[in-house]
Amino acid sequence: KFFSIKCSPNVHYKITPQARDRNADSYPLTPNAVLIVTMDAVSKTANDSKVPAISLDVDADRDGIVEKNNPNKGSWKWGPNGHGAILLVNCDSETTNKKTLDSEVEEIHLQDMSKMILRTNGPAELPEGYKLTMHISQTTSENVRVFRPRTNLIKLDRMPYLGGKTELEFFVEGLRFPDKDFDGLITINLSLLEPCGKGFPETPVFTDKVVFHISPWIMTPNTLKPVEVYVCSTDDNHSFLKSIRNLVEKCGYKLKICYEYMNRGDRWMQDELEFGYIDSPHHQFPVVLDSPRDGDLQDFPYESILGPDFGYVTRHALNEEVSSLDSFGNLEVSPPVTVNGKSYPLGRIIIGVAFPTATSGRNMTQVVQDFLWAQKVQAPIALYSDWLVVGHVDEFMTFVPAPDRKKFRLLLASPDAGYKVFKSLQNNGHGNAEMFPGLPEAISVNEILSDKKLQAGNRYVQNCIDWNRDVLKKELGLDDEDIIDLPILFQVLEEKKGARAVAYYPDMVNMIVLGDQLGIPKPFGPKVNGRCALETEVRSLLEPLGLKCTFIDDFAPYHKLLGEVHCGSNVLREASPFKWWNLEL
Amino acid sequence: KFFSIKCSPNVHYKITPQARDRNADSYPLTPNAVLIVTMDAVSKTANDSKVPAISLDVDADRDGIVEKNNPNKGSWKWGPNGHGAILLVNCDSETTNKKTLDSEVEEIHLQDMSKMILRTNGPAELPEGYKLTMHISQTTSENVRVFRPRTNLIKLDRMPYLGGKTELEFFVEGLRFPDKDFDGLITINLSLLEPCGKGFPETPVFTDKVVFHISPWIMTPNTLKPVEVYVCSTDDNHSFLKSIRNLVEKCGYKLKICYEYMNRGDRWMQDELEFGYIDSPHHQFPVVLDSPRDGDLQDFPYESILGPDFGYVTRHALNEEVSSLDSFGNLEVSPPVTVNGKSYPLGRIIIGVAFPTATSGRNMTQVVQDFLWAQKVQAPIALYSDWLVVGHVDEFMTFVPAPDRKKFRLLLASPDAGYKVFKSLQNNGHGNAEMFPGLPEAISVNEILSDKKLQAGNRYVQNCIDWNRDVLKKELGLDDEDIIDLPILFQVLEEKKGARAVAYYPDMVNMIVLGDQLGIPKPFGPKVNGRCALETEVRSLLEPLGLKCTFIDDFAPYHKLLGEVHCGSNVLREASPFKWWNLEL
Repeated sequence: KFFSIKCSPNVHYKITPQARDRNADSYPLTPNAVLIVTMDAVSKTANDSKVPAISLDVDADRDGIVEKNNPNKGSWKWGPNGHGAILLVNCDSETTNKKTLDSEVEEIHLQDMSKMILRTNGPAELPEGYKLTMHISQTTSENVRVFRPRTNLIKLDRMPYLGGKTELEFFVEGLRFPDKDFDGLITINLSLLEPCGKGFPETPVFTDKVVFHISPWIMTPNTLKPVEVYVCSTDDNHSFLKSIRNLVEKCGYKLKICYEYMNRGDRWMQDELEFGYIDSPHHQFPVVLDSPRDGDLQDFPYESILGPDFGYVTRHALNEEVSSLDSFGNLEVSPPVTVNGKSYPLGRIIIGVAFPTATSGRNMTQVVQDFLWAQKVQAPIALYSDWLVVGHVDEFMTFVPAPDRKKFRLLLASPDAGYKVFKSLQNNGHGNAEMFPGLPEAISVNEILSDKKLQAGNRYVQNCIDWNRDVLKKELGLDDEDIIDLPILFQVLEEKKGARAVAYYPDMVNMIVLGDQLGIPKPFGPKVNGRCALETEVRSLLEPLGLKCTFIDDFAPYHKLLGEVHCGSNVLREASPFKWWNLEL
Repeated sequence: KFFSIKCSPNVHYKITPQARDRNADSYPLTPNAVLIVTMDAVSKTANDSKVPAISLDVDADRDGIVEKNNPNKGSWKWGPNGHGAILLVNCDSETTNKKTLDSEVEEIHLQDMSKMILRTNGPAELPEGYKLTMHISQTTSENVRVFRPRTNLIKLDRMPYLGGKTELEFFVEGLRFPDKDFDGLITINLSLLEPCGKGFPETPVFTDKVVFHISPWIMTPNTLKPVEVYVCSTDDNHSFLKSIRNLVEKCGYKLKICYEYMNRGDRWMQDELEFGYIDSPHHQFPVVLDSPRDGDLQDFPYESILGPDFGYVTRHALNEEVSSLDSFGNLEVSPPVTVNGKSYPLGRIIIGVAFPTATSGRNMTQVVQDFLWAQKVQAPIALYSDWLVVGHVDEFMTFVPAPDRKKFRLLLASPDAGYKVFKSLQNNGHGNAEMFPGLPEAISVNEILSDKKLQAGNRYVQNCIDWNRDVLKKELGLDDEDIIDLPILFQVLEEKKGARAVAYYPDMVNMIVLGDQLGIPKPFGPKVNGRCALETEVRSLLEPLGLKCTFIDDFAPYHKLLGEVHCGSNVLREASPFKWWNLEL
């Protein structure tokens, strides 16, 4: 009716259900009594039918150090109180001979991988027939590889067991970014298998599990500090290049020039690529997203940007024609915003698409849209940009840093603001002043204001921009005070597929933003007292924010080809100090 | 240098930047002064160049009533403080003549749809050339339809405008459940388009946006109240059917019998289908998930279950062979649990798969796994069930309600507990008592205990179950005290593809759970004082929890065909009182 228990040191027991009439020496023997025996120390020999202590460990608390047996290592949770380890796609190229993505070769470049430690504590050898195996699902195996230092890619189904108290280091490499069909989560299991005698399969006696989340690809808004400015050298842009060089040198950033042998005349550095980065507690590096646009600059991102600690990713359109909306002048990102109480500390991605009521229209290719949405941490906003001939959002909007309010302003192209300038010139007796002074296109203020067709076109353009303004206000939580209207006129061209707009004079909103220094397309506006009235107006709008305006002549080599300063440049920026895994999704 | 403003009643203005030297009558005129004029009332006539007030409204606060212009109607947030409207897949069949899913016909069955109201307030007519359009993306249009009462499916690109203060009712119908490639979110936009004169496209002057989330398909654990029990009638299960009928009638639930003309001898009611439900603030109904198994019962879910307010959904395997693991005896759901502080108020789905270290093995087909994972609200757990010949999780586990602790117990089949009973019989002088008394299979306790092969097989089986026990403890946050081991022996058969297990005597864990009434396979154990020792043991384990055990003879028509009571029945249960949209994901 009663039983008693004695244990040697390091052995503990627990009896359930808890005996009620317990005394010092014995317990009542009930039908359902369960005695659970545990021990403090692991086995010293292989034959005492005990198993070693085993733990597969990762940096689940995201401090850059692999801790011991974190209770949350087997699941992922977003946020500052979250948990779960982080993995980088090994999309840079450390190879010195032939250039390849590290993730495509069987070489081992540990610095980009996440450390994983197999901790065992037990007898010198596992009992006869026992073995350790690591396993990942079929789907997961396409997204991840596991390495051992010096032994390269490992066979997962036969893990070494070294005996005693040992720590075996592994390195885990991400192969694929999150996408429509992949949520970015990777699970790795480790099991100790027990032999069950002849005729029976081995059975797992213990399984440990760790979870990684692949770092999303993250874009950098204009408010982040520049590192390097990219621009093309062509046979006709010498003085433009000089202006850019002066501006960049004044600011103290690096300048990277893509020469003609590589760009083959394709000067649209903004359109072929977008800079972003990937981030983990142990490592971070920039990653260029190569556009499916594929103009003559198409080899530049892979050949000239991909390298050690500079990653590369691309998406190819599937059974779809690539349109002008696939150029990355049509892919921007806002500074950090808070909208109705929901915060976006990494900002929100902005792309341009066809207005959805239209029965036809150009669009950004679906694979790129899917990729952008799948990154999750910069929830995209789709604007309406198909009303433009070129169709890029950077033709009517940009962001500049500001010292007050939300720490930035949204700049919008505004025909209304443009007409306000021209009317004010006329009213002040400058009706005969010439737009495009000294250029073959020269035309007087009076002539511009009497052009009814130009007016009708700009009313249409203002409508299109106003709609985007409403969407941006709503989706970024902006007030009218957060927006500055730049005086820019457009003209509407009759195309086969309907009327679409281009900038009438250099589109000042299409600027390069380098800290508080702005490189703005020189508008060639009418002169008043020797000064361009449009430049004066723009200075009066931006200089009160502490911004410095440099007007750059891009007329012949860019504006006439339907692009401007922003289209013709690109800026690699520092990563945000905000860590993406601290987002509350 | 100064200006002043006068407004008629109902007109308001705001000046930015806020004038500093303001006095009663005038404001300083600064270069960047912006004057914003708003009005209280809408236009009364079409020609005053104002537009009407427009709002597309849904039940974004989830109280069953469409409110007015909810500021959060354009986004989705999980949780009790969340927002966003809810949509049901119209997967039941209200048609009276030919049976079809409502979502596949152009008839209108409003009760299953979500109401959406277009509120306008303005002049009797829109100004010339203006129009209202509703638009959804190409992808979304495959997932949703919009109806107007009496006019059936509507043309989205030309919305009626009725003038004055009007409310136009629409009904939105979901067409597809969340899946791997569809997150369940639906966005509907409404725009007012303005004509821009000849040669220009119309431009949107105002766009409103609403978001719906499609209800996931939700499973019902054993702890929810039964509504109706489903069972097959075959030419050999008369007395089994009678036992089930007695039990169900005693409990006061409904019984639905599937007769032979429909089941064609396929008695595995558990395997062909799984009951679940979909839920919204305005409506809720059960939905049967039809397995890709497709035995002779394959027409039953569509022909006999689908009906008014009883939905139907299925998934077909793509280029994959369907295996026994696709039967829904291999698909269960836990009661509500909390694991490491994370709560699963709707429980967690449980399926069985091949153990992933195995180089080969059967699995649940990927399309069904994708569907289950995509529902999100009952995060699935994959157990190892391929060690069984039939390979279903219901062969070694079930859940029963309990008054204490987590309000349930996990019951596990346990060869160790089985051997404990038989050894205790032997020790108490009942070694000659017969298992299967009176049946051709009769065998003594001593004989069973001396069968080394049986013992080796059960050691193997115990290993397999113990591994699952560890996973269940971890993933459901269970303690040993939450688990009850039922005494069940297995035998391992040598099959072409290796050794796999079946229950040696009726597998008592494969029971039907109807509130506190359990219908348990009668084990035909050795008799002691005229009572079956196995039944006595199981009663002693379960009755203290307030559970009532009825042992049902399923030996010939089920056990001998490798199934038991649970495999041969199914239970439609009430929906959980917990609303899925209140989950914090």
